[in-house]
Parts: sequence; structure tokens; C-alpha cells
Amino acid sequence: MSPSTKKKRRPRGSGIKTGMSPGTMVFIGEQKQDRARIEVLAYSEATFDELHDIPVEQCRPFANAPGVSWINVNGIHDVGLIQALGSIFGLHPLTLEDLVNTGQRLKIEEFPSYTFIVLKMITFNETTQSIDVEHVSLILGERFVLSFQEDAGDVFGTVRERLRSAKGRLRSMKADYLAYSLMDAVVDHYFLAVERIGERIEDLDERSLIEPRPEDIGEIHRLKRVILMLRKAAWPLREEIGALEKSELAMVRPETRLFWRDLYDHTIQILEMADTYRDILGGMHDTFLSSMSNRMNEIMKVLTIIATIFIPLTFIAGVYGMNFVHMPELQWRWGYHIVWGIMLIVGCGLLAYFKRKKWL
Amino acid sequence: MSPSTKKKRRPRGSGIKTGMSPGTMVFIGEQKQDRARIEVLAYSEATFDELHDIPVEQCRPFANAPGVSWINVNGIHDVGLIQALGSIFGLHPLTLEDLVNTGQRLKIEEFPSYTFIVLKMITFNETTQSIDVEHVSLILGERFVLSFQEDAGDVFGTVRERLRSAKGRLRSMKADYLAYSLMDAVVDHYFLAVERIGERIEDLDERSLIEPRPEDIGEIHRLKRVILMLRKAAWPLREEIGALEKSELAMVRPETRLFWRDLYDHTIQILEMADTYRDILGGMHDTFLSSMSNRMNEIMKVLTIIATIFIPLTFIAGVYGMNFVHMPELQWRWGYHIVWGIMLIVGCGLLAYFKRKKWL
Amino acid sequence: MSPSTKKKRRPRGSGIKTGMSPGTMVFIGEQKQDRARIEVLAYSEATFDELHDIPVEQCRPFANAPGVSWINVNGIHDVGLIQALGSIFGLHPLTLEDLVNTGQRLKIEEFPSYTFIVLKMITFNETTQSIDVEHVSLILGERFVLSFQEDAGDVFGTVRERLRSAKGRLRSMKADYLAYSLMDAVVDHYFLAVERIGERIEDLDERSLIEPRPEDIGEIHRLKRVILMLRKAAWPLREEIGALEKSELAMVRPETRLFWRDLYDHTIQILEMADTYRDILGGMHDTFLSSMSNRMNEIMKVLTIIATIFIPLTFIAGVYGMNFVHMPELQWRWGYHIVWGIMLIVGCGLLAYFKRKKWL
Amino acid sequence: MSPSTKKKRRPRGSGIKTGMSPGTMVFIGEQKQDRARIEVLAYSEATFDELHDIPVEQCRPFANAPGVSWINVNGIHDVGLIQALGSIFGLHPLTLEDLVNTGQRLKIEEFPSYTFIVLKMITFNETTQSIDVEHVSLILGERFVLSFQEDAGDVFGTVRERLRSAKGRLRSMKADYLAYSLMDAVVDHYFLAVERIGERIEDLDERSLIEPRPEDIGEIHRLKRVILMLRKAAWPLREEIGALEKSELAMVRPETRLFWRDLYDHTIQILEMADTYRDILGGMHDTFLSSMSNRMNEIMKVLTIIATIFIPLTFIAGVYGMNFVHMPELQWRWGYHIVWGIMLIVGCGLLAYFKRKKWL
Amino acid sequence: MSPSTKKKRRPRGSGIKTGMSPGTMVFIGEQKQDRARIEVLAYSEATFDELHDIPVEQCRPFANAPGVSWINVNGIHDVGLIQALGSIFGLHPLTLEDLVNTGQRLKIEEFPSYTFIVLKMITFNETTQSIDVEHVSLILGERFVLSFQEDAGDVFGTVRERLRSAKGRLRSMKADYLAYSLMDAVVDHYFLAVERIGERIEDLDERSLIEPRPEDIGEIHRLKRVILMLRKAAWPLREEIGALEKSELAMVRPETRLFWRDLYDHTIQILEMADTYRDILGGMHDTFLSSMSNRMNEIMKVLTIIATIFIPLTFIAGVYGMNFVHMPELQWRWGYHIVWGIMLIVGCGLLAYFKRKKWL
Ligand SMILES: [Mg+2]
Ligand SMILES: [Mg+2]
Ligand SMILES: [Mg+2]
Ligand SMILES: [Mg+2]
Ligand SMILES: [Mg+2]
Ligand SMILES: [Mg+2]
Ligand SMILES: [Mg+2]
Ligand SMILES: [Mg+2]
Ligand SMILES: [Mg+2]
Ligand SMILES: [Mg+2]
Ligand SMILES: [Mg+2]
Ligand SMILES: [Mg+2]
Ligand SMILES: [Mg+2]
Ligand SMILES: [Mg+2]
Ligand SMILES: [Mg+2]
Ligand SMILES: [Mg+2]
Ligand SMILES: [Mg+2]
Ligand SMILES: [Mg+2]
Ligand SMILES: [Mg+2]
Ligand SMILES: [Mg+2]
Ligand SMILES: [Mg+2]
Ligand SMILES: [Mg+2]
Ligand SMILES: [Mg+2]
Ligand SMILES: [Mg+2]
Ligand SMILES: [Mg+2]
Ligand SMILES: [Mg+2]
Ligand SMILES: [Mg+2]
Ligand SMILES: [Mg+2]
Ligand SMILES: [Mg+2]
Ligand SMILES: [Mg+2]
Ligand SMILES: [Mg+2]
Repeated sequence: MSPSTKKKRRPRGSGIKTGMSPGTMVFIGEQKQDRARIEVLAYSEATFDELHDIPVEQCRPFANAPGVSWINVNGIHDVGLIQALGSIFGLHPLTLEDLVNTGQRLKIEEFPSYTFIVLKMITFNETTQSIDVEHVSLILGERFVLSFQEDAGDVFGTVRERLRSAKGRLRSMKADYLAYSLMDAVVDHYFLAVERIGERIEDLDERSLIEPRPEDIGEIHRLKRVILMLRKAAWPLREEIGALEKSELAMVRPETRLFWRDLYDHTIQILEMADTYRDILGGMHDTFLSSMSNRMNEIMKVLTIIATIFIPLTFIAGVYGMNFVHMPELQWRWGYHIVWGIMLIVGCGLLAYFKRKKWL
Repeated sequence: MSPSTKKKRRPRGSGIKTGMSPGTMVFIGEQKQDRARIEVLAYSEATFDELHDIPVEQCRPFANAPGVSWINVNGIHDVGLIQALGSIFGLHPLTLEDLVNTGQRLKIEEFPSYTFIVLKMITFNETTQSIDVEHVSLILGERFVLSFQEDAGDVFGTVRERLRSAKGRLRSMKADYLAYSLMDAVVDHYFLAVERIGERIEDLDERSLIEPRPEDIGEIHRLKRVILMLRKAAWPLREEIGALEKSELAMVRPETRLFWRDLYDHTIQILEMADTYRDILGGMHDTFLSSMSNRMNEIMKVLTIIATIFIPLTFIAGVYGMNFVHMPELQWRWGYHIVWGIMLIVGCGLLAYFKRKKWL
Repeated sequence: MSPSTKKKRRPRGSGIKTGMSPGTMVFIGEQKQDRARIEVLAYSEATFDELHDIPVEQCRPFANAPGVSWINVNGIHDVGLIQALGSIFGLHPLTLEDLVNTGQRLKIEEFPSYTFIVLKMITFNETTQSIDVEHVSLILGERFVLSFQEDAGDVFGTVRERLRSAKGRLRSMKADYLAYSLMDAVVDHYFLAVERIGERIEDLDERSLIEPRPEDIGEIHRLKRVILMLRKAAWPLREEIGALEKSELAMVRPETRLFWRDLYDHTIQILEMADTYRDILGGMHDTFLSSMSNRMNEIMKVLTIIATIFIPLTFIAGVYGMNFVHMPELQWRWGYHIVWGIMLIVGCGLLAYFKRKKWL
Repeated sequence: MSPSTKKKRRPRGSGIKTGMSPGTMVFIGEQKQDRARIEVLAYSEATFDELHDIPVEQCRPFANAPGVSWINVNGIHDVGLIQALGSIFGLHPLTLEDLVNTGQRLKIEEFPSYTFIVLKMITFNETTQSIDVEHVSLILGERFVLSFQEDAGDVFGTVRERLRSAKGRLRSMKADYLAYSLMDAVVDHYFLAVERIGERIEDLDERSLIEPRPEDIGEIHRLKRVILMLRKAAWPLREEIGALEKSELAMVRPETRLFWRDLYDHTIQILEMADTYRDILGGMHDTFLSSMSNRMNEIMKVLTIIATIFIPLTFIAGVYGMNFVHMPELQWRWGYHIVWGIMLIVGCGLLAYFKRKKWL
Repeated sequence: MSPSTKKKRRPRGSGIKTGMSPGTMVFIGEQKQDRARIEVLAYSEATFDELHDIPVEQCRPFANAPGVSWINVNGIHDVGLIQALGSIFGLHPLTLEDLVNTGQRLKIEEFPSYTFIVLKMITFNETTQSIDVEHVSLILGERFVLSFQEDAGDVFGTVRERLRSAKGRLRSMKADYLAYSLMDAVVDHYFLAVERIGERIEDLDERSLIEPRPEDIGEIHRLKRVILMLRKAAWPLREEIGALEKSELAMVRPETRLFWRDLYDHTIQILEMADTYRDILGGMHDTFLSSMSNRMNEIMKVLTIIATIFIPLTFIAGVYGMNFVHMPELQWRWGYHIVWGIMLIVGCGLLAYFKRKKWL
């Protein structure tokens, strides 16, 4: 496994919670920044407010404010902060437990007053030529969206920009459209990642056809793993978005339905691209193996032919190297030359035979 | 990968749109002709009008004209033109976004006033012995069909001819039958392509049985890829046509239902032919590999046998090439002849043993 | 591919119809007899009439005659005749198009006044040890059954016999029971074919266990292809018959339902037999490959061992063949015998080592 | 194929009935005993009657007797007897046809007055270490159960015993519980068979790990076939029993529903055990192949190394065996010893190189 | 197979019960402790009672006591005790039969007065590096939960602790929440097991990349088997919990539904982790095999090249070792040196050729 797909020794997983009461909040993952920070963007068609690094208590008004509020938390390792936010926005203990578990798989769960969405945010890492995955959860309420991520840095920059500049329809829509926009941004980065991996694959395919190298097989395996990781993250995403499109919830408004359908279509396209690349990698794998085995066969064949031609000749030479007193040929005037002739005939005969059989 | 299946370095894909507002129109693909052109064929049972290379504004009357109007656009890279047409015919921004994205997968989407159909037009390219794919979208409205393609040149010539000459039932039917006719033309070319590929496969199968060549394996892989490409384009087509056949839309009239069913049957047949050819290629692949490995085994066997027979003989010769002072056999009158005799016996004995074991 | 599964260069397939108006009748296939002939068997419980080689117009009364009429057409290449029959019995243009297309896949389609059934009639060809396939279509109407085949010669002889002799319940039943009887006859020949192929497989299995031959692998592949052909024809047949059993049509009477269920059961049995034989062939394939590779390994092993034993001995002989002036051993009285002793010890030692390691 | 799985040349199968009228009774199979015999056990909670080898006509009263009657027929080759019984108990001709066809697949069919169940009775044969299969059919009526088997000898001994001794609830229940008890006995023997095969597999696994033999691969294949045979018989059995559990028939009483569910659970367990053993055999197959190939590789490696070390040494000896007049080394006092030294250095050097590369 | 996955020779399985009346209780398994013991924890929000090793009759009051009673039985080999408990709590004979059968597969069955749940309790065994499986059954009644296990020692310690200390919501909830808590404890240990196995896999992956050893393949196979065992136990668990979540039973209260959903999510996560590890093991297997085959190919190649270079040289030496009287080269002053030159040229030429061909 190349370093790019090798995970660091995982901090203890869900197993650490063995025997704990259900709904017990324990952060599972790796702490990525020192202090958790809360960021709020509250807006309506006409107004816009932005707050950074505020204390939890200052979030309380946004639970029932007019307009739409987006509360983003960077740093889910701060269990106390998450718990406080949870009690402000009425989150179920089981939701809180999953929010702080980076090992939680993707899912969508409906609770009476909100919809809980677990995502994986994917970005292509140019250094490792692999993908980085960050655990992100969304809480979609009637008038707010909460987002929780492991650390600062995300793919939502353009959403913030559109909110600030009031470009497009985002400011005039409700919380469900904000949630859609955030998921759309996540999905856009899946596209970017699958395209970057695809370029790597096509480069490798092109180069290894001209000049295959033994290390190519390792790279093919590595890329297959990356594609599989991406596919594994995209598959439940598709289910989630399909469920949102078809959901009967009051907070998913009919006017956003077309947008969810469009996003659903995007996730299918990502899966199809991933499948195409997986098939291409499969083909490259087969081609590589058969070209390797062809090479080895060719080597063995040529070498064995060389050996085979000289072995009978060496035998002939051995015969006339015997020391018998009575070996008439040895006295012949042209004996030596005749033997050379015989050896040439045998050698060329064997060569001709191999040629005719198309072994050369 | 042979040149015929190798795509040119793709222009940036959907990833380029990361962070853009949904419904933002950006042409994704390769511009194939300099200027987009609009072509209109408006008809009823009694009338027929044909317009070429007209400005967008001239299309407005056809949105509500009596009879049926077919507006065909060659060149979807002209985003402004598409946008203008979109506002005339009331197309949703998400539809416009997909219209100009050649990477968009096949799908069918119903909007309140029209049905949006994404197709891939396939033609067999004799030069590359592969298939060319062109992105085509259809908008089926109550009284019009819009078609959008990448450049001039398509498979709709015979439909135009039937419209002009009023042959068959086309002129007396509504817009849904026109859409059906266009898709039927597309499907007919899938048939042509699969048959041409099938001929290539059967030729290769026949020839490689008589005289297998190392490059055959590459050709088998190439044809497999072409078949898979075709299959990938035909599979969602089948879904689309099945959905149209069963659709409850007012614009899909009961009297065309039988035609959609017939077309659905055609796509199944294409898929079955593709599957049959894929299986045949799979069998050819196995046969080729085992014939290659048989050949190699036969070579190794014969060569090893030759070597094996002479190695003991060379040993015997070596023994009597030793220079010991006291080697009684060397003085024998018939020693040399006896050794020759022994060597003949050993050689023939080994040959006989190999024969009996059926190794020769 | 052995001659038995190799199709003759196909006459142009469905691709020839590219661009034609839907419902255009073009014969696709190979003309198998010179002239098409119509045969009519009209019967009721009490009456029976049989007509041979009559002109089309003479069929018109049978469209509404009391009792049941079976009109059989040998030779679907005669497009004019089929068209004329079609207009007498009210067949849809899309049905006519499929009737004359031997490439049409199996299907069942319900039209308001008749059910259209496409079949493949299979017979085992003893000469090629493969199966012959003939395109057959049935039209099941209220009071008539039309059957269309490529040429004279079919599997319906016993049905005709039962009609003539009034044996069994056939004469006293309606048209749907006639259609059932024809399909039952077709299915019976599937049984015959699968049993004959099964015998070939069991013979080959038995023989190749005793004495495997290189050509066996080709025969295994050939039989696999034949089984797959048969399976491909039986699979949709099962769907068809299942659909007929469950159909709500007036022309499929409740009293024949048990018979359709029985026939459905037969097709499942054929599929299960085909699957069993496919699995057996798969096992034979694996066994053959591993026995071939065992053989090759055994050869290589024995030969390599022979060579390996003599190579050190030849080295020893070579040492005492050197011409140094000062080589004390050469003068020894028993030097030659000692060397022989050493060589025997080395040779037997190696043999013993190989034996102990179980390489011999 | 070892004798235990090799079927005897099958007597003609269903193909023999080609062209016969549906419902024609023809015994298909191998006659296993000379004369068919009828056995009747009639009982109620208080009464019990047992009759052996009675003529058919004597069965007529049991068709409507109070209590429950079990009529068992050993020897389905006696078509006349079956037909007579059929007319007494009102069996449909299609049922009779299937009763006497040992090639009939497992199925369950509901007729207005009875349920028809086709089974395979399986017993483990210690001699062939394989399973014996007997065709058994059950007819479950309101007040009777008919059972038909190929010959005397079955797995129903304990059911008879429980009937005679009035142990358990059997005597106090209706005909459906008798049918359940018979099928339970059949399923119990599936358990026995799968456990006996499992023991064989575990013994082989244990032994072949310590000392793999070439014939093991054949035994693995044979056991795989036996497991597949058993699985093929158990799969439709599960469907049958599931259908009976959920059936709406008057003759399947609510009070036996829990028993059918229990039996359904047993068949699932059998299938899971069969799947587990199939997986274990698959693993053994892979392990065996890789251990075989490891062995062969080790042989080839060691032998090639031996050869490779002596070939350069033989070359050196060959050099000093040349007869040139002017070869100064030959005159040297210590020439011979120096050459031996060189040969030792070369030989040990090669050995050390191989060691360092971990090839030894 | 390493000792850790090898089961001890199983005591007779379900086959021992062949022919027994359904509902006959026979202990199937291995007796793990000498005497069965009953333990009771009875509680309500305000009260808590704990009894150990009491006689069966003392359990009778708990069948209808107010509050919730948990009766745990260690030692299901004591068939009499189980039967007595069964009659106190009204268990069906078929339930009792399955309770004492350790070979019983996981399932959930609803009876009128209770729900019967069969589980497998899994713990990771550090000594064998494998998993230990214990058969556990739960009976969920209106006011009680019965649990049956093979011997003392289980994963329910923390549940007992929470009951005693009245921590969390457990004491204030009904019997269904107790059943949920027990199953949650079981599932938590699945997490622990899959994480411990995952660590083994990652260690092996890391180490075998640096230095692959032949025994690694065995360890890969062993870990695959452990993962498959775990997966086989987790798959039906997921079905069970899903069925409980969706069940319409009065005893599964709406307020625990969210907890069942959470537990269902956990089992899916376990299955996904198991699948991920299975895929990783598959990849390791492929990588290992190809690295092994690469190694072998490299050895064969280098060795064959060495042999091939010296064989022509030995031939040359053999030629000048011939004893012909008339061999002019032998008299040449520089003959010996010329031959050495030729031999060097040939040797280096071959080396250069191999280099150029990239065989070295
Ligand atoms: Mg817990
Ligand atoms: Mg939880
Ligand atoms: Mg972040
Ligand atoms: Mg980050
Ligand atoms: Mg997007
Ligand atoms: Mg879109
Ligand atoms: Mg976007
Ligand atoms: Mg979009
Ligand atoms: Mg075009
Ligand atoms: Mg074009
Ligand atoms: Mg067409
Ligand atoms: Mg058609
Ligand atoms: Mg057409
Ligand atoms: Mg058509
Ligand atoms: Mg015919
Ligand atoms: Mg014919
Ligand atoms: Mg039949
Ligand atoms: Mg039948
Ligand atoms: Mg018949
Ligand atoms: Mg029948
Ligand atoms: Mg019997
Ligand atoms: Mg028997
Ligand atoms: Mg049982
Ligand atoms: Mg074992
Ligand atoms: Mg049970
Ligand atoms: Mg029993
Ligand atoms: Mg039971
Ligand atoms: Mg325990
Ligand atoms: Mg224990
Ligand atoms: Mg838990
Ligand atoms: Mg959770």
C-alpha cells in the first residue's frame, strides 16, 4: 500500500464505547484542530448577518429567528459544545452520539423536528494523489441548518460567497435550499475528485502501453482502492439524496424538488464514472499481467532455444574429445573439418526447424 | 489501447463548475463547428415549411404554431443561443444546464410543459473501426420537438425526407410521433453499429482460429471496449423508452404507444446482441490464452526433451575424455565402437520412454 | 469454432432497415425454399378439413369460420403473401414487420384482436452435433391460429396427426388449446435437444477422464456454446408461457390454464437441465485444464531431474579431462575406478535426495 | 468423476414423450423393483388400521373414510396401478404424468381437491460416499395423503412407528400434519446427509493439510458435486415448504402453521450448511492448488540452482581440457590446484549469492 | 488452517434427531459447565432485586410480577430445567427445541405471547486471534426477558451494572428496552471483534509489504475465514433488528423505536466494516500471489541467463578439447589466447544482448 491510501493507526473506533449506555457522547476520531469554533450566517432575502467564533449561548436566538440561519461548527471533538448546541436546537441523544463519531457511516434519519444527514466531504489531495475524507453532518430544521465538521476548511466557500453577495436564488429560498446548496457543493467536489483520478488513470494507461514498468501494477491497485473509497462514499449519498427528493416532509418544499432531482442525477453520474474507471483499471490490470507474462515467456523461449542448439553440438565435441586409442576419425586428414561441418549442419538444421515451427 | 478507442484529452468536465450556482449554463465538451445553426421543419398533414440558419427570434412563432414544429440546433457550444431558445420555449434552467453538457448521462425528465430526453447518437466509424458518439437532447412539447446536437451531420436524414415527401404516417401524426421517429432513427444506427462490430468479431474469430497472432489479444480487448461503450449507451436508452411507453403524459398519445413498445423491443434486441458478442469475445479471449499457453508449453517440452537426451550422452563422452593413465577401456580394440553403441542405446531408450509416456 | 456452431455469413440484419418508416416489411434472413406455401387445417369436434398450397384469397373465410382454423405458412420470405394474409386477419404493420424478421428475439405481444408470439423452433442436428434454429411466429386469435415458419419441415407433425385422428382432447378444444399444443411440441423438442447434448457431454466426460486429448477443450467450448444458445432460446420462452398462463385475455380460457402451467413447468425444467449441463461442462473444463497442467508439470519435473543428476557428473568427468601436467590423481592405479565410484555416489545421492523429498 | 457421483447411463428422459398428447402417462426412470405394492395406514385418534400389498380397488373406501388415510405406493413404474389409483382419488392427468416421471423437478401445485408435492428423498450412501436420490410425490387431500416412491425402503419408518404407538400428537391431528411429518422425515435425512458429507470434508481438510496428495483435488471436486446436488434438491424444497406455510388452503390448518414454519427454518439451515461447506471446499481447492504450485516451484528452483552452479564450473574444466600446444597454465606446478581453488570460489560465490538473495 | 479457526470435532448435530417427533428437546452442542444456574434481576424504577442460583420453581412469581424481570440461564445442556422454565413462562415446544440446539441459526419468531430471538454472542479471543461464538436465545415477553446461554460469562456485565446503579434510562423503561440493551451489548462486542481483526489485518498488510513470507498466505486465508464467520453471524442479526424495529407487536413500544433504528444502523456499519476488510484481504491475497510469482520469475530468469551464457562457451572449449590429429589451431602460437578472446566476446556479447533487451 503506498502512503497515500495508508490510514494512520486509527484512534480507537466504536469499540471503545462497549457497554456504554446508548446515546453516550464520546468523540471517536482524531482531533484535527485545537479549539472548536462556531460560525453563523443568518439571512433573509433582504438581510444578512455573519458572526464568527461566538460562544454557544449566543446561538440560542437563531433556533427561532425569522429568515434562515446557518450555524457551522468546526471541531466536533468538543463534546461539551456539541451537547450545549444540541440542547438549544432540540437534538436527540442518538443524533448527538453520531455527530461526534467520525466512523459513522453515511445515512439520513428523520426526527420529528429535524432531518439528520451524515455526509463525507471529499477533496482530492494532490500531494498523496489520493482523496481526503472529512466527516460532516447536517441538521436540517424548519428555519435553520446546522453543519458539523472535523476542522476548519471546507468546500462551502462558494455558498458563503453567494449568500454574502445575494447572487442567484439562494437568499430568497428557505432552509431546505441551503441544505441542498451545501450538499451540491459536496457533490461538486466528488466530480472534481473523480475527474482528477480519471486523469491519473488515463496518463498511466497511456504511458504503460508504451513502456510497462513493474511498479505500474502497484499504482493500478492503489488507484483501484481510491476509486473504491470514492464509490463507497458516493453510493449512500445517492440513497440519501433520493430519499430527500421523495420525502414527504414539510421542510422539503415542492419548489426545491427539481433541484434535489438534479443533484440525484449528479450522484448517479459520479457512480457511473467511478464504475467506468474501475472497469478501465480492471482492463489495465489484465493487459499488464498478460504483457508481463508474454515478456517472461519470450525470455524463457529465446534462452532455452540458445541452450538447446548448443547442447547437441557440445555432445559432438565431447565425442571427439574421448581418449580411445582406436578412433579412426581422429587420424583422418579432414576429420576436424568434417566435424565442424556436421556441427554447422546440426546447428543450422535446428535453427531452421525452430524457424519453420515459428518458435523464433 | 488502439487509437480508435482512445479519447482525446478531455476538455475539463463537470468539475469545472464546482461552486457555481445550480442552473448555471457552461458548455462542457469540445467545440466541433464554428457557428451554431438553427433549422426548422414545420408541418401539418397538408402543409410543410423548411427554414435553415435562421436567427433565434424567428423561432418564437413555432412555440405555439398549429401543426408540429421541429427545431433542430447544430452546435450546443453557443450558450447564448441555447439560452435564448430556452426562454422562448419555457425551458427550466436545470434543463438548459444539461443541454450544453456533453458529459451528461442519458436520462428522461418530465417537466410540467415538456419532456426532456438526453440521448447519445452512435455511428460506426469505418476508419477507426470504433463508434463515434454525439450528445443529442430532445425536448418534446405539446406541439414542438426541439433537438440539440454538437454539430451538423446526424442520423435524421431519412426522417427529414419522409417529412418532405409526406410518405408514411409521419406528417399526419403529432409531435410525440416525431420524437418517436427521431429516436427510432437513433436506435436504427445502434443496430448498424452492433452489426458492423459483430462482423469484425466474426472475421477475427475465423482468422485467429486458423492463425492466431499475438496482436489478436489487443484487438479482442479493443472490441470488448467498443461493445461495452455501446452497451452503456443502450442500457439507459431502454429505460428511457420504457418510461415513455408507460408514461401517463398527455403529450404521449395512446395511438403511438404501440410504436414505443416496438422501439423498446428494438433496444432489448440491441442489448441482447451486445451481450452475445461480449460472450463470444470472452470465449475468444479464453481460447486465445489457452492456445498461446499450449504453444509455449509445446515449445518448452520439445526443447527440454532435446536437451535431456543429450545431457547423459555428453556425460558418457566426458567420462572417456578423462586423462587417467589407467583406463583399460581406452585400449580396447572396439572400445570406441562400444561406447557409440551405448550412447545410441541410451539415446533411443530415452526417446522410446518419452514416446511411451506420450510426451512426444 | 467447429463447423457446427459457426453461422454462415449472415445476410444483412436489422441494420438494413435503417431509416425506413416503422412497419416497413423487409424479409431479414436467408431464403430457405423457393416458394411460400399455405396449409390450412380447419376443425371442430365433429368436422375436419385440410387444404394444401392454396392461394391467399382462399384463406379469407377462415378468419370468421365456426370451429378452429390453423393456417400455417412455410416461407416467410414471400413478403407479399404475408402482407395479404395480414390484411385478411387484421394484423398490425408492426406485427408484420416482425413476422418476416428472422433476427427478431422471442417475445409475446398483445394486440386488441390477437396475441402475437415469437418462438424459436429447435431441433438437434445429428450431423453437426449442434442445434438448428428456425424462426416461428404464432398469431392466436379468437377462432384461428396462424403459424409462420421459414420453410417446410417442422415439429408439428404429431399435432396434425392428433387433429386428423381426433385422438385426445385437441379436436374438442378452442384455438388457445391448439396454440398450447403447438408450443408444447416446440418445448418437447427442446427436451430432445438438451438430452442429446447431455449424452454428448456425458460421453465426452467419461472418455476424457480415461484418456484426455488436446482437442477435448475445443469440444467442451463448442458444447458450452450450444448449451448457451439453447438456454438463450428457452429463457424468454419461459417468460412467454408464464405470461400466457397468467394472462387475463378472453382468448386464453380458464380450462387451458392448467396446461399452460404444466408447460411453464417444462420450460423451467429445460432451463435447470441446461444449467446443470453448463455446470458439468464448467467442471470438465477445470478438470481438463488442471490435468493438462499436471501432465506438463510432471514432464518438466522428470526431465529437469534427469538433467540435474548428470550435470554434476559431467563436471567431475570434465575435471579429469583437463590436461594439466601435474595432476597426481591421473597417475593413481585406481584413480579411474575411484572417480567412477564418486560419480555413482553423487548420482545415487541426488536420486535418494529427490526420492526423500518426494519429487520422484 | 469417481463412481459415486457417476450416474448410470440414464434411461431415456422426458424427450421420449415428444409429440405425445399432454397428460399421457409414461414411466420415465429406471425400474427398481419387480412389482408395485400398496400399503395403507388408516387412523384416527382412537383407531388404527394397517394393510399391506392390497389390490387397488381395496383403496376406494379410503378416499372418503373418516379419520386420516395414508396410502403409500412403492413402485411408480406400474403405470396401470397409478392410473387406477388416480381415478379413485380424482387426480388430474397432468398430475399422473408427473407422478411417474422420476426426472420431474421439485414443485408444488394446487388443484381444486388436493395439493400435489414433488420431493426428492435423499439418503447418504456410505459405500459410494455420495447421496442416493429417490423420486417421491405426495398428494395431500382433505382426509388422505398419497405417497408414491420408486421402490420399497424409505425414511418414513419412524412416522409409521409413531402412528402405530400413538406417541406424540400425530394420531390426533389431520392429514396436513401427516404430510408435514413425512416432509419433516425427508428433511431430517437432508440434515444427516449434509452432516456426513461435512465430516468427510473436515477429515479431508485435516489430512490434506498435513500431507496433500494429487488425488485430493479429485475428491474435492467430487464432494463439491455432491454438495451441489444436495443444494439443488434443498432449494426448491424450501420454496415448497414456504408456500405451504403461507398457503390459504382449507386443508392446511392454522394449528399446523407453526410446524411448517419450523420446517421452513430447517431447510434454510440445510442450505446455509451446504453453502458453508461449499465455501470451505472452495477454500480447500484454492489452498490445494497453491500448495501444489508452491511445491512445483520449489522443485524447479532447487534443481535449476544445482544446474546453474555446475555449468560455469564445467566450463572452467572444459577450458583446461583443450589441447592447445601453447597453454602455459598446464605446465604450472600448482595449476591444477589453482583451478580447483577457482572452481571452489566460483561455486561457493554463487551459493552465497543465492543465499543472500534468499533463493535458497 | 491455524488452530484458531479449527473447530473441535463437533458433537453430533441436528442429524441425531432424525425421526424424532417435532418439538422433542435434545441438547445439541458441547456441555461447557457442570451445572446450569439461574440468575434473576427484577426491577422497576424504584425497586431492584437480584437472585443467584435459585431453583426453577422460585421463578414462577416473575412470570406475572409487576415491573420487569430478567431471568438468565447459564447452561442450556440441562434440558429438564429448560423444560420446567418453559412450562412456567408458556413457551412452545418448538421454541424449547431450538433453545437447546447450539446449531440453530439466527432467527426471530413471533409467538402469541412472546418473541423468540436467537443470537450468537461473539467475543474476540486474544489467544487464538480468532472469535469465540456462544449460542444465546432471548425470550421477550410483556413483562420479562429470558436469556439462555451455554455457560457463565457473557457480555451483559455493563447492563447488570446499569440496572444495579439505576444509571441512565434503563430502570425506568419496560422489558423491550431491556431486550434492546442486551442486544446492544452483543452488537458492541461485534464492533470490538471487527476492530481487533482489522488491526491484525492492517499489521499483516504493513509487514508483508516490507517482507512477504510464505506463511502470510495462510494467515490471509485464516483472517478471511474469521471475517466470513463474523459476517455470517452479523447478517441475520441485521434482519432480526430490522424486523423488531418495524414490528407491530404491543411489546415493542413506540418509545424504543428510535433505539432499535440506531442498533440497526450499527449492524449495517459492522457489515460494511466486514466487507471493507474482506476486500482488503482480497487485495492482499492478489498482491501476495503476484509478488510471489514475480519473485519466482526473477529467479528463473537470472538462473537461466547464467546457464545460457556458459553453454556456448563450454561448447567452444569442447571443440578445442577434441583429439583430432589434424587441428591446425592447436599448433598456433596464440591459439589459446585467441580462443579466450572469442569466449570473452561471445560471453560479453550475450550479456550486452540481454541488457539491451532489458532482460537483466
Ligand atoms: Mg452500548
Ligand atoms: Mg448508538
Ligand atoms: Mg472542515
Ligand atoms: Mg479538513
Ligand atoms: Mg452541482
Ligand atoms: Mg443537471
Ligand atoms: Mg454547483
Ligand atoms: Mg446541475
Ligand atoms: Mg450532429
Ligand atoms: Mg457529428
Ligand atoms: Mg427501427
Ligand atoms: Mg418490431
Ligand atoms: Mg426505422
Ligand atoms: Mg420496427
Ligand atoms: Mg419449418
Ligand atoms: Mg427448417
Ligand atoms: Mg410436453
Ligand atoms: Mg407436468
Ligand atoms: Mg407432448
Ligand atoms: Mg406434461
Ligand atoms: Mg422407496
Ligand atoms: Mg430406494
Ligand atoms: Mg425435523
Ligand atoms: Mg477442519
Ligand atoms: Mg426449530
Ligand atoms: Mg423429526
Ligand atoms: Mg424442529
Ligand atoms: Mg455465557
Ligand atoms: Mg462462554
Ligand atoms: Mg451500541
Ligand atoms: Mg447511532
